[in-house]
Amino acid sequence: MPGGTLRIGMVGYAFMGVAHSQGWRGARSFFEPPIAPELAAVCGRDTGRARELARRFGWGEVVGDWRELVAREDIDLIDICSPGDTHAEIAIAALEAGKHVLCEKPLANTVAEAEAMAEAAERALARGVYATVGFTYRRVPAIALAAKWLWEGRIGCIRHVRAQYLQDWLTDADAPMSWRLRKEQAGSGALGDIGAHIIDLVQHLTGESITGVSALMETFVHQRPIPDGGFGEVTVDDAAVFLGRLSGGALATFEATRFATGRKNAIRLEVNGTEGGLAFDFEDMNVLWWHDNTADPAEAGYRRVVVTEPGHPYLAGWWPPGHGLGYEHAFTHQANDLLHAIAQDRQPTPSFAEGLGVQRVLDAVQASAADESRWTPVPGSRVGAS
Amino acid sequence: MPGGTLRIGMVGYAFMGVAHSQGWRGARSFFEPPIAPELAAVCGRDTGRARELARRFGWGEVVGDWRELVAREDIDLIDICSPGDTHAEIAIAALEAGKHVLCEKPLANTVAEAEAMAEAAERALARGVYATVGFTYRRVPAIALAAKWLWEGRIGCIRHVRAQYLQDWLTDADAPMSWRLRKEQAGSGALGDIGAHIIDLVQHLTGESITGVSALMETFVHQRPIPDGGFGEVTVDDAAVFLGRLSGGALATFEATRFATGRKNAIRLEVNGTEGGLAFDFEDMNVLWWHDNTADPAEAGYRRVVVTEPGHPYLAGWWPPGHGLGYEHAFTHQANDLLHAIAQDRQPTPSFAEGLGVQRVLDAVQASAADESRWTPVPGSRVGAS
Amino acid sequence: MPGGTLRIGMVGYAFMGVAHSQGWRGARSFFEPPIAPELAAVCGRDTGRARELARRFGWGEVVGDWRELVAREDIDLIDICSPGDTHAEIAIAALEAGKHVLCEKPLANTVAEAEAMAEAAERALARGVYATVGFTYRRVPAIALAAKWLWEGRIGCIRHVRAQYLQDWLTDADAPMSWRLRKEQAGSGALGDIGAHIIDLVQHLTGESITGVSALMETFVHQRPIPDGGFGEVTVDDAAVFLGRLSGGALATFEATRFATGRKNAIRLEVNGTEGGLAFDFEDMNVLWWHDNTADPAEAGYRRVVVTEPGHPYLAGWWPPGHGLGYEHAFTHQANDLLHAIAQDRQPTPSFAEGLGVQRVLDAVQASAADESRWTPVPGSRVGAS
Amino acid sequence: MPGGTLRIGMVGYAFMGVAHSQGWRGARSFFEPPIAPELAAVCGRDTGRARELARRFGWGEVVGDWRELVAREDIDLIDICSPGDTHAEIAIAALEAGKHVLCEKPLANTVAEAEAMAEAAERALARGVYATVGFTYRRVPAIALAAKWLWEGRIGCIRHVRAQYLQDWLTDADAPMSWRLRKEQAGSGALGDIGAHIIDLVQHLTGESITGVSALMETFVHQRPIPDGGFGEVTVDDAAVFLGRLSGGALATFEATRFATGRKNAIRLEVNGTEGGLAFDFEDMNVLWWHDNTADPAEAGYRRVVVTEPGHPYLAGWWPPGHGLGYEHAFTHQANDLLHAIAQDRQPTPSFAEGLGVQRVLDAVQASAADESRWTPVPGSRVGAS
Repeated sequence: MPGGTLRIGMVGYAFMGVAHSQGWRGARSFFEPPIAPELAAVCGRDTGRARELARRFGWGEVVGDWRELVAREDIDLIDICSPGDTHAEIAIAALEAGKHVLCEKPLANTVAEAEAMAEAAERALARGVYATVGFTYRRVPAIALAAKWLWEGRIGCIRHVRAQYLQDWLTDADAPMSWRLRKEQAGSGALGDIGAHIIDLVQHLTGESITGVSALMETFVHQRPIPDGGFGEVTVDDAAVFLGRLSGGALATFEATRFATGRKNAIRLEVNGTEGGLAFDFEDMNVLWWHDNTADPAEAGYRRVVVTEPGHPYLAGWWPPGHGLGYEHAFTHQANDLLHAIAQDRQPTPSFAEGLGVQRVLDAVQASAADESRWTPVPGSRVGAS
Repeated sequence: MPGGTLRIGMVGYAFMGVAHSQGWRGARSFFEPPIAPELAAVCGRDTGRARELARRFGWGEVVGDWRELVAREDIDLIDICSPGDTHAEIAIAALEAGKHVLCEKPLANTVAEAEAMAEAAERALARGVYATVGFTYRRVPAIALAAKWLWEGRIGCIRHVRAQYLQDWLTDADAPMSWRLRKEQAGSGALGDIGAHIIDLVQHLTGESITGVSALMETFVHQRPIPDGGFGEVTVDDAAVFLGRLSGGALATFEATRFATGRKNAIRLEVNGTEGGLAFDFEDMNVLWWHDNTADPAEAGYRRVVVTEPGHPYLAGWWPPGHGLGYEHAFTHQANDLLHAIAQDRQPTPSFAEGLGVQRVLDAVQASAADESRWTPVPGSRVGAS
Repeated sequence: MPGGTLRIGMVGYAFMGVAHSQGWRGARSFFEPPIAPELAAVCGRDTGRARELARRFGWGEVVGDWRELVAREDIDLIDICSPGDTHAEIAIAALEAGKHVLCEKPLANTVAEAEAMAEAAERALARGVYATVGFTYRRVPAIALAAKWLWEGRIGCIRHVRAQYLQDWLTDADAPMSWRLRKEQAGSGALGDIGAHIIDLVQHLTGESITGVSALMETFVHQRPIPDGGFGEVTVDDAAVFLGRLSGGALATFEATRFATGRKNAIRLEVNGTEGGLAFDFEDMNVLWWHDNTADPAEAGYRRVVVTEPGHPYLAGWWPPGHGLGYEHAFTHQANDLLHAIAQDRQPTPSFAEGLGVQRVLDAVQASAADESRWTPVPGSRVGAS
Repeated sequence: MPGGTLRIGMVGYAFMGVAHSQGWRGARSFFEPPIAPELAAVCGRDTGRARELARRFGWGEVVGDWRELVAREDIDLIDICSPGDTHAEIAIAALEAGKHVLCEKPLANTVAEAEAMAEAAERALARGVYATVGFTYRRVPAIALAAKWLWEGRIGCIRHVRAQYLQDWLTDADAPMSWRLRKEQAGSGALGDIGAHIIDLVQHLTGESITGVSALMETFVHQRPIPDGGFGEVTVDDAAVFLGRLSGGALATFEATRFATGRKNAIRLEVNGTEGGLAFDFEDMNVLWWHDNTADPAEAGYRRVVVTEPGHPYLAGWWPPGHGLGYEHAFTHQANDLLHAIAQDRQPTPSFAEGLGVQRVLDAVQASAADESRWTPVPGSRVGAS
């Protein structure tokens, strides 16, 4: 890392490639990272599209094969934004080559892959090489504030969690077939794509593990039109609902769906504890609702905390109070947090082990759904007190 | 029913006794029932409290034993507002004595009792004697509007239902012991008391049955202080969460709890269908949210329908637009609907058979929770197309 | 008042007649008034409609002329629900006959009438006869809670008030002509009908006077169809907007309109003070929003207080927490408060003098609007510190 | 403009300097401007801070004197982000030197300055040199959507506008003195700083002029502590409230304040017309509420349009539906729109003439407030039909 910079090589150029580009660049503009990110090279099989991204965001170079990127001396971190079925190979190679890795979620398409990745990360860690997985929603300020308050014990002993990730882009039976609906590429459907986020958020926010689940999964529309003609078989879930138990004894309900008509990207989280309650909806992403149960009942109520004060997580870098942030800002926070962790030579969060933990919950959900919703323990989860 | 009146004998004088009294009286004042309800007699073991209710609401007489009420010639309808463990005996006796019956929910404490009651109702029906169960929330105007729109097909084929009934009065571990927390009297806890409502509402609104469930139940606090000293054992559930499948194939999630900190009486319902979505929260009870999925996406959004227009269910009897109703008004609607059904010599809704249907779901939930959340079919439920 | 009852004679049988009937009856059923209201007689020129109301609510008698009511020995209180142009004559006669008076708002159609009424009330007071004006919205629990908190100083020194009363029933230019749109009967339009409410609420809540105003009034549609044919001239205002100064120095904005498309009965109040803020909207009438400005900014936010706790104003008489009230309940609270005041031999609120104060503001608004929005002091208003 | 780029020289490096930097850069990354913005040079008296900004955002050069910037051949556009008292001199010099100008709002501190600027812009226009003023909130997608719908006539004939810009950073009497509170630098207080925005938005959205006003202004706290010791005199307004009339006859109310406790940056806009209503609050900036008054009343209601669909203004450049934008994105839209206008050789909006129009309203507000709220016509405003 000569000259206090971190040279980034990014794999992928689509939705996540754009978000990560904006994130790296914003970290330098709005925060004071101890090492400056350098957008060194972007890699993609479609080099035309990669070049386009490079032009727009100022990536220094375009590379056609990720192996080349991993092999280069002048790259410090590999940022993996390609589809899930490529994660394991790239991440393990990069870590073994001594590059730090930021890998988009879900960590992998299978638990086996995720385990291999977590092991590679463990080995790399011993050499001061770090791996982290991009559960970016943790860095939405209102969610980060919720985490802070939960960890401080402000909500008390947790009794209930409600977690929903609601989208509706498949509601229409004529919505076209895509790679996201094929199991071999996408791994799973709503469950892995968006369910993974709420699983991570619940474990992150509560500081507890999901110890077991009971699940129902569904594919409502089995064939969808292929843009070029004909129909393709949908081999992933359209929706997954499941019950979970947290290690501290709380009851949790989860829902991930692409059929929640009228809800575009509604990540909804609610936590009820003995001392209070919290509620969040990504449709109003700058707001955290907090009920203080220690207040006089005649004065109590869910308060609408607009999370734009300088004392709120990440906000000091941005605008005056009341000037809200958007979706992409969490990628800037992620980049900045990662730069700090690397500069301070400590493990960034979430680790690959945490990503593997999410993968194991996804696996248990699928196992339960395949076996009449039978209660399915999550291997390796911490079992709590209650 | 001489003189176009319906002489009512009510059993019970507590919370529900008050609500029913106000309901009967309001039907005469705000609607045009074809037969006028006469508050003939109120019955309660504590005749002092019954007399107090009679004084406040104008009940003509006070009676100490329900059997006396059932035996009297000059009573046309028995309104059962006493605890659940008394329902079966009173209702069956009343029906056999030729009295119409309005019975508070849940219909009974066990499926066996509910079956006996449904059979008694079936026999009575043949003699023009009617029985109905008080799932009063059906008559909240916003919910009645939701039902109307769902039945018209405005939401299309249903994919998801979310149903929650959230209260928080047991959050505090020092909240006192009461009869509602003893299984022998209350039958069950949150599940039977408030879960029954959302089960009924989901089946009513969708016109579909819950065909099976997978459940988790919990008692968070096992001992509670008895006001007179010492501690009592809580033998019912504090919370129940379950997954369900509707006969049309939709996925449903249910939650009934007394530990949802900061939520006092939040009945929340959401339905997503191929043509639209609906959402309701009893905390804002005069509002129904509706998303019309057939609209141009650039113009679509959940619209906040304030359900106080003369064209809305039940509203023509009340105030000008924008003058909201409250909790108790649904009891007036219930009374008025029942008076119409009796006058027109037709079965009022919901029937005891529908109440039994709810009871069977409650039973399946308990069975599933007792057997590792295993998927448990609901006996007698209609199985739908998907 | 023999036997602890208060015998009521009500003049009028329309919208307000119904609301008052329900109010008197409810006071006896849900509260413990020290003297019981007796619905003795209802009076109306259309005795058929009066009889209908009597039948529905149990009024003991029907009378055709209010003078007869006033003359009777067996009537203790005259409840005036007839149009504004009748208030002065009836109220003064009743007070002189030794009857207590509850008079619907606005107190009168002119300041001169209101002054005469206030004087009559002053004289009657000396004889233990009480007069009060029906600014019923003061008794909506959320508004009563706001008043309590403001009077306690919880909001600090008031800087801003925003008050809007928004309806939309005249938006359509084809909405028919009615007596409410004729100056000779209605006195004024939106200003007197609904503007009077927010003027009263602002003065009541803040405990300050409106010392001057600057106003703009408008009639958007000058002719409207008469149901029987032809067109009638609209001679009142459709909307009034005005600025005001409170005696404590705060700036206030007011808007009363029947052209606020989509808003049916939206009374919106916001107060900002040095220590906090309050906000209310009648569209969500069981909720008071409170911002505590003494809290840590990172924890602050408007909290949604659901005003249904036993510790909230008027709620102890009603249902458990979370079971909301409706529009008409404020009439029950008004009846109960009045019964207590009379039983305790003290002036009920608001007095006719307060009603006169509102009338003077209405007058100043009209004067300002007629004179190029010139700043117009309100005669007799207290002038505050700033 | 050699090579299809527009070389920008920016004056100022504070809050607005950062926002504009992010805006120019984002236009290149997320949109397809026909000419690419080049961050050529940033200018500021404090060259250290200017250099810091240059480092963070990639400005090519740092210059100490704006005159140097204006004199250079290799600068195409001057972006003025310095305080209001510098706008006129810089803008006029730049336009005369043949540079396009983007000038932050308010256009100037006085009408005289604004007139000179508008004249300079008029002259420049003849030479194909363009001037525009940064009323950036017009480019918030929900506001742009509101404008589109209003201009299409979807709301019908406008009857009412409510416009509020609420902040609270001066609520505390101990908040420190700053240049923004001194008339000689800031021109005015809340009125010019934030009131200017809502004046522009109302005229922009409705396509009508404010033809006259009646106003009240206030300074609640006259002396504030100077950080270095002692107290300074506040010579600007803390709050301004005013009534306005639109050229089409609608009534408008305006409020701009820094004392709205608990409201950080709440720009609230409501429009009621004969065909519908619109409402917006910057606290929930990705949402536009729309009431369609042509719908069946039983189906009508304000719908919450989440303005993140590809068919919504500016959204095609960003993320999938439901992934909200933040405050700064409007600066990217402003930059992109300006690049298009220049490339297409047409006047960008808003012009300096529009900025002057806002200035004249500000002037009329101050004149009215200084003369007992007397109705004060706005010179040069179009007078509409009603």
